[in-house]
Amino acid sequence: MPSPTVTPIAATEDQLAHVRYDANGLVPAIVQQEGTGTILMVAWMNEATLRQSLEEGRTVFWSRSRQEVWRKGDTSGDRQYIRSAYYDCDGDVLLFVVEQEGKGACHTGAFSCFYRAFGSSDQSDQD
Amino acid sequence: MPSPTVTPIAATEDQLAHVRYDANGLVPAIVQQEGTGTILMVAWMNEATLRQSLEEGRTVFWSRSRQEVWRKGDTSGDRQYIRSAYYDCDGDVLLFVVEQEGKGACHTGAFSCFYRAFGSSDQSDQD
Repeated sequence: MPSPTVTPIAATEDQLAHVRYDANGLVPAIVQQEGTGTILMVAWMNEATLRQSLEEGRTVFWSRSRQEVWRKGDTSGDRQYIRSAYYDCDGDVLLFVVEQEGKGACHTGAFSCFYRAFGSSDQSDQD
Repeated sequence: MPSPTVTPIAATEDQLAHVRYDANGLVPAIVQQEGTGTILMVAWMNEATLRQSLEEGRTVFWSRSRQEVWRKGDTSGDRQYIRSAYYDCDGDVLLFVVEQEGKGACHTGAFSCFYRAFGSSDQSDQD
């Protein structure tokens, strides 16, 4: 099966300047599946990995636990191809709409990291 | 027009114990519109406002800027009625699927806080 098309995003410097990083130089990034709207995961980016994500058209995070660049899917094969990217009103949260390759986004093997609902004894999928 | 139905969520203590708060006692909460999957906003909760949200069936946040409980919509009328709620694999991000009342979620007047796309000169809606 051919790999998904890669579509780099040409962000402007003005857009990138709207992003506000926390004291550790990081900003949270929500990853959402294209088409279904399913929220797959949340991870963190610094300015370098945000730029890299937009240029490569794939999500690249900063791993807080390993303190290193985390090019999502390089090891697992579960790459995320970016179709569109947004920053919120305050510039302190990012949103990436992606085509998810492979088994899914979660290291547990679940497709989405949000596989547990409050108030239900069963594991439940999102809406 | 009648108000939306309120549906409290009976989370178990075991589920609530999975939630991991940061050094300030806060956890980020993504708010997503029921049905469309549109991501409306991200705000923060502490343990008390998480419990209050689930019990009242409405989103209640902790305002970091005002350092006070922020019962979403009490002032603006733009309440969010919770239909389901999730915690992620690490327990450090929450997700609320809601029925959004009023004009929308964003203090700018936009329906969603994520109204600006990278790489486009126009304001763009999410997928």
